[in-house]
Amino acid sequence: MSEAPATLHARISQAAREVRATCPLAGSITNAVTVNLVANAQLAAGGSAAMVYLADEALALTQVGGAFYVNLGTLLPCHAQSIPAAARALRDLARPLVLDPVGIGLGELRGQILDELRDAPPAIVRCNASEAIALARQWGLLEGDEAQGPRGVDAQDAVDDARAAAQAIARFIDGAVAVSGETDLVASADRVVEVEGGSPLMTKVTGMGCSLGGVAAVYAAVTDPFTAALAAAAHYKVAGTRAQRDCAGPASFQLAFVDALHAIGPDELAAEAVLRERGR
Amino acid sequence: MSEAPATLHARISQAAREVRATCPLAGSITNAVTVNLVANAQLAAGGSAAMVYLADEALALTQVGGAFYVNLGTLLPCHAQSIPAAARALRDLARPLVLDPVGIGLGELRGQILDELRDAPPAIVRCNASEAIALARQWGLLEGDEAQGPRGVDAQDAVDDARAAAQAIARFIDGAVAVSGETDLVASADRVVEVEGGSPLMTKVTGMGCSLGGVAAVYAAVTDPFTAALAAAAHYKVAGTRAQRDCAGPASFQLAFVDALHAIGPDELAAEAVLRERGR
Amino acid sequence: MSEAPATLHARISQAAREVRATCPLAGSITNAVTVNLVANAQLAAGGSAAMVYLADEALALTQVGGAFYVNLGTLLPCHAQSIPAAARALRDLARPLVLDPVGIGLGELRGQILDELRDAPPAIVRCNASEAIALARQWGLLEGDEAQGPRGVDAQDAVDDARAAAQAIARFIDGAVAVSGETDLVASADRVVEVEGGSPLMTKVTGMGCSLGGVAAVYAAVTDPFTAALAAAAHYKVAGTRAQRDCAGPASFQLAFVDALHAIGPDELAAEAVLRERGR
Repeated sequence: MSEAPATLHARISQAAREVRATCPLAGSITNAVTVNLVANAQLAAGGSAAMVYLADEALALTQVGGAFYVNLGTLLPCHAQSIPAAARALRDLARPLVLDPVGIGLGELRGQILDELRDAPPAIVRCNASEAIALARQWGLLEGDEAQGPRGVDAQDAVDDARAAAQAIARFIDGAVAVSGETDLVASADRVVEVEGGSPLMTKVTGMGCSLGGVAAVYAAVTDPFTAALAAAAHYKVAGTRAQRDCAGPASFQLAFVDALHAIGPDELAAEAVLRERGR
Repeated sequence: MSEAPATLHARISQAAREVRATCPLAGSITNAVTVNLVANAQLAAGGSAAMVYLADEALALTQVGGAFYVNLGTLLPCHAQSIPAAARALRDLARPLVLDPVGIGLGELRGQILDELRDAPPAIVRCNASEAIALARQWGLLEGDEAQGPRGVDAQDAVDDARAAAQAIARFIDGAVAVSGETDLVASADRVVEVEGGSPLMTKVTGMGCSLGGVAAVYAAVTDPFTAALAAAAHYKVAGTRAQRDCAGPASFQLAFVDALHAIGPDELAAEAVLRERGR
Repeated sequence: MSEAPATLHARISQAAREVRATCPLAGSITNAVTVNLVANAQLAAGGSAAMVYLADEALALTQVGGAFYVNLGTLLPCHAQSIPAAARALRDLARPLVLDPVGIGLGELRGQILDELRDAPPAIVRCNASEAIALARQWGLLEGDEAQGPRGVDAQDAVDDARAAAQAIARFIDGAVAVSGETDLVASADRVVEVEGGSPLMTKVTGMGCSLGGVAAVYAAVTDPFTAALAAAAHYKVAGTRAQRDCAGPASFQLAFVDALHAIGPDELAAEAVLRERGR
């Protein structure tokens, strides 16, 4: 990992260059619906992928991979052990965990796992606006009158409304939070950057958010959490903008999107990324 | 849910219009092979998707979704609890369950679950001809000399041969049965409609039947079971006919098919659906 | 199963002809990441697919299918029973098992299953170079100074380095080993054939190796293990060469590849397969 350059665009292109040069492995425990897209997006972005269910396999992957991705969709009983075990191992190794708290509020196990992750926190959280608010609430990071109760898999809150939650989480984990939406928001403890671009069809393909988390883990293997979250979000927005141009619907969009993830080089990524700093 | 219009075509276009307007959520417990296509087809048809394995998560989804989809492929031990629990919850909530009894006859758990579903029956069964016969037999709805023994995942019986079975199931569940084949057959207690169209390549892509069940659940969230089964079957046949035109093989067919599911508006769907009423 | 013709090319085209004529079923226990591609590749190559997790379902599939495929990726606790049970059933039925030992060395269960498979061995092993070496070591088939320790999911060893391991495994199982790489290597107890072609993009799509194992099982249902492994490897290389021509990246490559698997007839397959015999 080299010294990070000064500008955001330079940090993104350098991260992309290191991913292309080193093909870093990011192991995953991720959901059954979108696991294939997660792996293919990680490969297309320049990384390596390996998915597991069992705790001892997850522990082995935390040791050989540069980062690890946990997505809470489609939980099975074995995840009660394997996800917290992986998170603790990563904490002890000081290796980055990327968390997608999808489905937060749905069922008992998800809440129990998120309680355990409070003590072995991720370096990056990738989520939508309502999930950011729900996670900040569950970890006791927010006060005030925000609505209680379970939050689902849809983005019910505007990304901007989740800014306070994202910053609270970023400070608590001393890492970064990427909130996906029409405009993405990437927050560290002291900076907030908006990332523009993409396509409305991204909401019509399952797993765009899940696979963004997986790609963020690939980037996290080569750079700091904030740069990794930003590079992944920018890579997705640029690829989404490109894929939108020629597609005829959600399936051809997904195909063009993965092709674009693969085609976009580090310099193009930096040149086409539309970033706006909102605070620091 | 508005009053259903008189003609079948009008009922289909109205259902499609309501799906587009409300983006209804249909939760699923479905198989690992085709779960990604189920979710993408539900999104392309205008609905929302959420998949789970665990019983308490399924119960939570039955409460927030307008309908629920259960597909018996790739069973895991946890499905012994979660599928019957979801079915009983839906019965008590009077919300529609769509069932795909894929693999009926294979293994012990599948039969045990289907026995439990007899007392918490689906509103719609989506299956092929041999599965319809096997299910009608297992639930004791048929008599006579039809062949005994387990039936597999292939359509060994012509759709027309399954007409009696489909009607017997439809009467028993007081709902609808959609039997997929070269010509689909949709039966209620007192009507049978054939749906024509589609493509021979639909048998060369895994999950066309599974995902039809998922789309039927999306429609079941906004209309009665018979209209929902008919609208989903028609949507699939029309999309299959369109996708057949330009494709070069099964993978490009699947891509064009999902794009077509998304592109076909309510009026086009009604205009292109080829229906033939066989009895009432 | 007819008498095998004399030349390798003739054996391949005859196997492809029998697959197209009989649409053989090969059941699978395979990983969640790539299960959809495995099924679609099996269908595109002319076979039938059915995937299970549970032991009694696997046993039922071994009885109705002409061959069976086991892939060790994404293991779950239930696989501790179902995989060895399926392997023993196939041994007792004298039906071919195709094994992909992906992830060998990762976690305890995978090693335990592979120990059990030593006594109920596959007819075909499909793997990469490092996996071939690791498997030959685990089964005690190699001696010398090859590197110890767990081997991952990437091909760390050149295919040629794995030749000794592949032949040792082929002799031990009295079957065939297909080692995937830039040039594939297919070994029986007394022959080694290299298969050329394909595309560099095959390493950028998850599941090319997994699905090759599934297609090898389809071929194994109609011919001897060596011919089956060779036909599947040749089918993949020819389809990969064709798909490479027009694609714009890994996703369009995968689509063109599956279309090509479906489009390539037995005569084209034999005409376009590039084989080189290395020893007998």
